[in-house]
Amino acid sequence: MARPTPLSGFPEWLPAGRIVEQHVLDTLRRTFELHGFAGIETRAVEPLSELLRKGETSKEVYVLRRLQAEADDAAAVDDNTLGLHFDLTVPFARYVLENAGQLSFPFRRYQIQKVWRGERPQDGRFREFYQADIDVVGAGELPYHVEVELPLVISEALGALPIPPVRILVNNRKVAEGFYRGVGLDDVEAVLRSIDKLDKIGPAKVAALLQEEAGATPDQAAACVALAGISGSDARVAEQVVRLAKQHGAHSDLLDSGLAELVALVEEAAAVAPGVLVADLRIARGLDYYTGSVYETVLVGHEALGSICSGGRYDELASDGANTFPGVGLSIGVSRLVSRLLGEHLVGASRSVPSAVLVAVTSEQTRSASVRAAAALRARGIPVEVAPSAAKFGKQIRHADRRGIPFVWFPGVDGASDEVKDIRSGEQATADASAWEPPSADRWPTVTATEG
Amino acid sequence: MARPTPLSGFPEWLPAGRIVEQHVLDTLRRTFELHGFAGIETRAVEPLSELLRKGETSKEVYVLRRLQAEADDAAAVDDNTLGLHFDLTVPFARYVLENAGQLSFPFRRYQIQKVWRGERPQDGRFREFYQADIDVVGAGELPYHVEVELPLVISEALGALPIPPVRILVNNRKVAEGFYRGVGLDDVEAVLRSIDKLDKIGPAKVAALLQEEAGATPDQAAACVALAGISGSDARVAEQVVRLAKQHGAHSDLLDSGLAELVALVEEAAAVAPGVLVADLRIARGLDYYTGSVYETVLVGHEALGSICSGGRYDELASDGANTFPGVGLSIGVSRLVSRLLGEHLVGASRSVPSAVLVAVTSEQTRSASVRAAAALRARGIPVEVAPSAAKFGKQIRHADRRGIPFVWFPGVDGASDEVKDIRSGEQATADASAWEPPSADRWPTVTATEG
Repeated sequence: MARPTPLSGFPEWLPAGRIVEQHVLDTLRRTFELHGFAGIETRAVEPLSELLRKGETSKEVYVLRRLQAEADDAAAVDDNTLGLHFDLTVPFARYVLENAGQLSFPFRRYQIQKVWRGERPQDGRFREFYQADIDVVGAGELPYHVEVELPLVISEALGALPIPPVRILVNNRKVAEGFYRGVGLDDVEAVLRSIDKLDKIGPAKVAALLQEEAGATPDQAAACVALAGISGSDARVAEQVVRLAKQHGAHSDLLDSGLAELVALVEEAAAVAPGVLVADLRIARGLDYYTGSVYETVLVGHEALGSICSGGRYDELASDGANTFPGVGLSIGVSRLVSRLLGEHLVGASRSVPSAVLVAVTSEQTRSASVRAAAALRARGIPVEVAPSAAKFGKQIRHADRRGIPFVWFPGVDGASDEVKDIRSGEQATADASAWEPPSADRWPTVTATEG
Repeated sequence: MARPTPLSGFPEWLPAGRIVEQHVLDTLRRTFELHGFAGIETRAVEPLSELLRKGETSKEVYVLRRLQAEADDAAAVDDNTLGLHFDLTVPFARYVLENAGQLSFPFRRYQIQKVWRGERPQDGRFREFYQADIDVVGAGELPYHVEVELPLVISEALGALPIPPVRILVNNRKVAEGFYRGVGLDDVEAVLRSIDKLDKIGPAKVAALLQEEAGATPDQAAACVALAGISGSDARVAEQVVRLAKQHGAHSDLLDSGLAELVALVEEAAAVAPGVLVADLRIARGLDYYTGSVYETVLVGHEALGSICSGGRYDELASDGANTFPGVGLSIGVSRLVSRLLGEHLVGASRSVPSAVLVAVTSEQTRSASVRAAAALRARGIPVEVAPSAAKFGKQIRHADRRGIPFVWFPGVDGASDEVKDIRSGEQATADASAWEPPSADRWPTVTATEG
């Protein structure tokens, strides 16, 4: 069998890289749990009817069929056909409806799973990747303060990682819609689509686009482009927007209510996590389906990577006729982040295996003494492996060194004491397997930002 | 949208059930890491050519295609078609070959992931489930002692779970093959296929089958059936086999070498974990591809559930022409186990959310005081959530009670001290959020075996 080659779009890591990814996943999970989010997992598949409820995403779905399905059925696709989920929101909405009677609302959940998108291979995008989502969903109603709480949980979770600082950019659907309608533009979605192109084509071309696509006058287009230029972390954002609205003769209760929410959000956030949350009225992505706050998150110094965590407030995650479930949610693109961290060597693991100690084997006849020493260390929570063969000690030390294992343990022979060697310093001392402790920093692999 | 219904074969749990599953996964992971196994994850998909290398399993594969693939391609299946992995061994073998140059051998890895099997829905089998695998793989060679070590790691991992005790049944390909050839039966696979039916059809019908399918004489058939009846945990197993072989005029060096291994295995295991490992010569499943020890694991009192952990020694996990990679591996069927634990209420979680404390909100105007108290508790690693609304305290206490949250925290108003109430006992006392600690058993949800 020839050496296999990687599949484009399906990232995999060597053991040391997986330690980094696992550290990211563990850290996110711990922060979410400290905030009382319950973990759930949903199956990887949903019926196509569920996946295509919002039509637009259909192009990215992988559909499944059993290899041994009858030939007639092989190419058939109907509503019951199963597809792999492409995000965690669609399955969560289904889970909430399916289990509504057994869940307590507001329901706080986190969900960390892989998702799949049937991208064309040549796009160079991920086709399999981890997402880490938090949502709070209410039955019928959900108070505004959840829109303040959730980006702060994300800020804390990302802040606990060995990564550059993040900046969470927030906007509010009510501000955008209130302003556009205030200046006389009622096709809000068309305006948003144009504004969303600002980074790509610049303000002049967006102003032209607004006139072509959203029926704006030059003055209306200028107002929208000017709105998108406003950002900040305090009440001055609202003052600027109000001034701009007045200049263009706009007034709207919706705008006022949105501005009050937006200012409350950035000011409350600034008290808890100064400088992390910034109101940025250029954010348009997602405003077509979110109904209140909307969030995007950039890694400072790596803005070109795009948003690593997005989300917002939605008034209807799901509805079964009798009940409607509003929510606020954010989703971290874990694989995109980890791939960048590993690809640019921004973080590293202290070793490639869990073991803090390799127990040497003096001879195969005395392997059981090594196994006993290992068990004694392990009983106190120290990760340990036993050397695979009774090779010369120099070779056994190299075995540890290659894996980054810091300590080699030598069981005493014929009544002699055990000894332990720190192979980094070369220091060796007698030790008792039922009492010895490694320095706490050496017990488990650590993941840290690398210098430079 | 109507209330969705579960998909047969794709298990999902409510939050309390997920806490149980997560506890099982965490416990397995911790034990594997204490033994120095490095965690890896492989992508969910493999090319069909890889999945079908052992032809037989083809019936269980789910193949993927992009929903938007051109119609011509929709029904086409070739070697490059992607399928979901149906176990973790095939992807691990591919991973080892792909990364052999960057791995250190012997390579100890664990892998905990979902796998998928395209079973017919009416079979009522799992179509998506968790497996937790450990393997040690060598480059070119792998010493026998790994065959002793791995079932002991599994015994320790399963022993750390709140489940009934397990029994690991072991056999050895060399014993079976050596004995069959010794009595004159060279079609070893045919003999194994018949012996594998013992539990289902009984010894008389197996003896008949051996004559029909493996060309055995009545005496040879009786010898094979008698061999399958031998079990035990010490050297007497070997004595019985040797006596039986003599009765049937059989001698074989392979048999002798297999018996020496099998006895060494159960005796060494008995010294570490008395009563867990039992030699059972009826075990035939897997002996067609394993080359040394083979393992099956039953939950005592739940034997009808079948094996919850199986594996063995294989001389060629993978080969790239230049190198051959022998290994020893075991795979735990986690979902089968968890499904049984939850379905029969054998274990339970102490609550359905991570939170140990609900911080009450006196009024929406003082919510920030509640948020600050929560942050102070959380800073010391206590999972906390803040009440969603400033309802009457009775209602806020019911909110905690419904989720099993043991403590409700009342922030002091107007300079008064904070107070904390254990809602199980009703006891309430003043407390300081920067110092108070819950009893350690209450800090995180616990998972325990239920009475009866």
